Amino acid sequence: MDRPRYAYLGPSGTFTEQALAQVVSPEQGEYLPYPDVTSSLEAVRSGSADFAVVAIESTGDGGVTATLDALATGSPLVLLREMLVPVQFDLVAAPGTTLSQVRRVSAHPHAWVQCRGWLSTHVPGAVHVPAASNTAPALVLASGERSPAFDAALVPPTAVEAYGLSALARQVADSDGLITRFVLVGHPGDVPPRTGADKTTLVVQLPDDESGALMSMLEQFAVRGINLSRIESRPVGDSLGRYSFSIDCEGHLMDERIGEALMGLHRTCPYVRFLGSYPRADGTAQQVTVGTSDVEFADARRWLAALRDSEPR
Amino acid sequence: MDRPRYAYLGPSGTFTEQALAQVVSPEQGEYLPYPDVTSSLEAVRSGSADFAVVAIESTGDGGVTATLDALATGSPLVLLREMLVPVQFDLVAAPGTTLSQVRRVSAHPHAWVQCRGWLSTHVPGAVHVPAASNTAPALVLASGERSPAFDAALVPPTAVEAYGLSALARQVADSDGLITRFVLVGHPGDVPPRTGADKTTLVVQLPDDESGALMSMLEQFAVRGINLSRIESRPVGDSLGRYSFSIDCEGHLMDERIGEALMGLHRTCPYVRFLGSYPRADGTAQQVTVGTSDVEFADARRWLAALRDSEPR
Amino acid sequence: MDRPRYAYLGPSGTFTEQALAQVVSPEQGEYLPYPDVTSSLEAVRSGSADFAVVAIESTGDGGVTATLDALATGSPLVLLREMLVPVQFDLVAAPGTTLSQVRRVSAHPHAWVQCRGWLSTHVPGAVHVPAASNTAPALVLASGERSPAFDAALVPPTAVEAYGLSALARQVADSDGLITRFVLVGHPGDVPPRTGADKTTLVVQLPDDESGALMSMLEQFAVRGINLSRIESRPVGDSLGRYSFSIDCEGHLMDERIGEALMGLHRTCPYVRFLGSYPRADGTAQQVTVGTSDVEFADARRWLAALRDSEPR
Amino acid sequence: MDRPRYAYLGPSGTFTEQALAQVVSPEQGEYLPYPDVTSSLEAVRSGSADFAVVAIESTGDGGVTATLDALATGSPLVLLREMLVPVQFDLVAAPGTTLSQVRRVSAHPHAWVQCRGWLSTHVPGAVHVPAASNTAPALVLASGERSPAFDAALVPPTAVEAYGLSALARQVADSDGLITRFVLVGHPGDVPPRTGADKTTLVVQLPDDESGALMSMLEQFAVRGINLSRIESRPVGDSLGRYSFSIDCEGHLMDERIGEALMGLHRTCPYVRFLGSYPRADGTAQQVTVGTSDVEFADARRWLAALRDSEPR
Repeated sequence: MDRPRYAYLGPSGTFTEQALAQVVSPEQGEYLPYPDVTSSLEAVRSGSADFAVVAIESTGDGGVTATLDALATGSPLVLLREMLVPVQFDLVAAPGTTLSQVRRVSAHPHAWVQCRGWLSTHVPGAVHVPAASNTAPALVLASGERSPAFDAALVPPTAVEAYGLSALARQVADSDGLITRFVLVGHPGDVPPRTGADKTTLVVQLPDDESGALMSMLEQFAVRGINLSRIESRPVGDSLGRYSFSIDCEGHLMDERIGEALMGLHRTCPYVRFLGSYPRADGTAQQVTVGTSDVEFADARRWLAALRDSEPR
Repeated sequence: MDRPRYAYLGPSGTFTEQALAQVVSPEQGEYLPYPDVTSSLEAVRSGSADFAVVAIESTGDGGVTATLDALATGSPLVLLREMLVPVQFDLVAAPGTTLSQVRRVSAHPHAWVQCRGWLSTHVPGAVHVPAASNTAPALVLASGERSPAFDAALVPPTAVEAYGLSALARQVADSDGLITRFVLVGHPGDVPPRTGADKTTLVVQLPDDESGALMSMLEQFAVRGINLSRIESRPVGDSLGRYSFSIDCEGHLMDERIGEALMGLHRTCPYVRFLGSYPRADGTAQQVTVGTSDVEFADARRWLAALRDSEPR
Repeated sequence: MDRPRYAYLGPSGTFTEQALAQVVSPEQGEYLPYPDVTSSLEAVRSGSADFAVVAIESTGDGGVTATLDALATGSPLVLLREMLVPVQFDLVAAPGTTLSQVRRVSAHPHAWVQCRGWLSTHVPGAVHVPAASNTAPALVLASGERSPAFDAALVPPTAVEAYGLSALARQVADSDGLITRFVLVGHPGDVPPRTGADKTTLVVQLPDDESGALMSMLEQFAVRGINLSRIESRPVGDSLGRYSFSIDCEGHLMDERIGEALMGLHRTCPYVRFLGSYPRADGTAQQVTVGTSDVEFADARRWLAALRDSEPR
Repeated sequence: MDRPRYAYLGPSGTFTEQALAQVVSPEQGEYLPYPDVTSSLEAVRSGSADFAVVAIESTGDGGVTATLDALATGSPLVLLREMLVPVQFDLVAAPGTTLSQVRRVSAHPHAWVQCRGWLSTHVPGAVHVPAASNTAPALVLASGERSPAFDAALVPPTAVEAYGLSALARQVADSDGLITRFVLVGHPGDVPPRTGADKTTLVVQLPDDESGALMSMLEQFAVRGINLSRIESRPVGDSLGRYSFSIDCEGHLMDERIGEALMGLHRTCPYVRFLGSYPRADGTAQQVTVGTSDVEFADARRWLAALRDSEPR
């Protein structure tokens, strides 16, 4: 049987590749580099790949909007697993370039944001030349091309040697503890069983005609004792002031309280998409508040049935 | 077959008897007078009566605590129907007594509260002599007994002639529009089918160790779009500061939204008692807010089942 | 100077008198017995007394509605202090009467409720003859009058000897730990300074045209971190389904968070009456949640003023 | 006196320049092009410009994170005005290039997102080459440089003629009604007076140790009747799962209800930054709910003062 194929943001050396390596070795899975997150996910939708690994959130720059938006619409995909990758950057340049000569810095927009402080101090006038991935400019520098577009680049430390580059400065991220969260994405039906330390990811669009709609939506979780670990707003594309929310909540699709909350959202919000239940990377078991365990749900259901049984319809 | 037996607060002529007459005529049901609400309800529990008619709420004096408390504990009874009775009072006295001679007025405590303003103006120094029902003092006066206890009484206008008394003053209630709400009480299993204009009555005790417990309890209704038409606090008997609540909400036990709210209360509150679903006396159909109809509940359940079907447990 | 005059529910020997004795000795204050709570409070309004001591809440029977209603309307009075009195009852009868002969029991309605269980076991068929106070039937029995109205009575243990009676049974209350809470009532302007362990009592009527009005009212407290220690519904007199609430919250009128909550209630509810701030009988200091201390309020006010100072109006 | 200087995202022809033109003509204000949003705002902070015009939100791609983040920290700036600009894109290329030859498309990331659907249909394999502004690639194409980096670009229609380019396709945005919202940014102290149709923009960080913190924060607005027109999450830079929120609410700093809500947020959240009150671009007057007008606040303040005046401290 063929090895499963994994789409990821290439070229080789990206943080995404490090996340992919947590899932499967190159011997057991085929690594398929794609130029961006959207095409990685499309590869799964079209059948060119079996799975995709994509960044979904980073300290310093928040949700990866391309990922959030690509998952929120189109044919359904689900998250199967999350992986955390520590993030750092080195500043590299063509041979012979010194720090004081740097004027234009190629960087993926997330990298630029995460090194902004260091750059403003050490390369004060530098202009951002956006890159499509963290290793794309490394490839350009390694090719020896006399690039008109930039004279230095922010790249992952692992890419410095891999591409035979030399670093002008090492560890230039503004924070030591940067982490990017990646997810493994596949088709519905592959969802992992519950472990007691799970997350469920949803997209929920708010009714736009109701003041207090966000509070009402949050109450669907609160009244069933469900904690949220992430909530991010995304615009609904056709007008200002309308939002959907990308949400991670604690628990699994098979938990009673999650099921009832999902039904509540489905009833009261114009659009709800289930994006998967999967084990938390940190393995922390969720808190179950009084009255929200499966046992208590089952007991309440029996109690109600007994009340109704003695009643005519 | 024997006529069904109805316990009510007697003796004859009480407002309770007027409420009972809305339910059944004396030809079709046996009227059994009892000295108080508690014993009326006990008669049903013990099998001495099939049904009881008791006051549950009045304008002017609020919930009838004896009724609320007797229903909240003990072997289960349910409300089957509600009846509204307009309330007025006449002031009656022994023959020969004038208004200026009145010093002690016998009155059921609810009657006293509802005529307090008139009395303070017209019989300023009068002292309240509590009566067990609105017609008990009428019976005493009619017997011609030289009572040491009172020299006048507040009684229903219908009792004035019935007991052959003469009124010192008519229509002495402080408000023209007083109404008392009565309920027909029977055994679980007799509950009427839903009409779309129903009420459900509950007793819910709050967890006492949680600040914000009342708000959390109310959210169990709000998140399912259920309106409350009555809420009254009652002490939980063994300490100050602990309460249960007697609640009327709009809807019927067989409504999906009511069922889910009942289960939510059962899971999160230490004590919930279902006291019946029955048609509203005013016949007003309840508002069903978006996302809370039975059709929408059923649709949400199918949607969740489809999500779960493709998932391993 | 004359001794201050204290109205209380007499005749002598009532629990109210015990509460009054916690406030002032008969040497230092004049004890004025009144036949009921309403007239005790009216005595202060009319100037016949300087203060009144009235029951406001009891375990077993909840709020004293006559007190709550008399304070909620009419010329303003305020609570100055609360006193807790343990409650018990003895069953007394005329000399020669045995337990098995008892048919009619005189009792204040609160006493009847608090001994209901014992009575149904030991005097199963007994009928309730309501009394205006806990000592009124003691006075009748002590007078030797051949009463037609009752043959036994529930009275405070202190009244048994005081009135020279003999007990058929001692300590017949259904619970050992019954407590009645009394309050000292006076004129606005007498309010005691804050101690850090205070209560504030309010009457708040809900807007009747708004579903969710009760939750909105409770949020006025919650958003300022104020805990409620008592909440009781009372009808607004002129129709079913309209309520005001009698509320005790933790804190003092002079606390910033209480002041802001009071203003919020005043803005959004049709009727708010301040009924006083006074030390808690149990002396427990209130919890002050983060962000709700006077220091934090003052800091927020300075911050806002600085923002506004740099702005044109 | 010198003309005021306005920093904006250049080079000439950007949507930002169109927004700037709504504020001031080139005769009355000096237009200073900057390479990105961050440096535009820094120009105001450093004194190199008096004002900046920056995009803050767009249909299709949501909040402009660079703007939100640059305003949230650093020395304080405030929003003075908002401007709406309709957005469209043309696809342009070097002379002689046909649609079927297009492989690499230069586009500002927001432009790429807003034309994603069209591109996937008409230039299916095209790769995104990120541009720093919507006109930067137009400048490159106009220069006649044989660019190695891209062979076509998405640019504003106004830039096609301005740079002497020819369009391969016109109006290629996926939606007809795209709008980008821009803001005029200046120093605190320049804030415009209230008009009754105002917005207030805030950054609020949540306490991270409290479940339900988002709901508590939203209640600070709800309890004062304040509607939110925008809410967007942004990460707090040093760990996953901590968020601040960028919020637009209806009303002005000088409104009483806004002032009290601001103080409530200041008291209970670890970080609140006021980013300005300014007229809404659409001129819609805000709804003022019952109990939240300035008149009602002033009345409540007087009522509280009267209560306190009669009390000792």
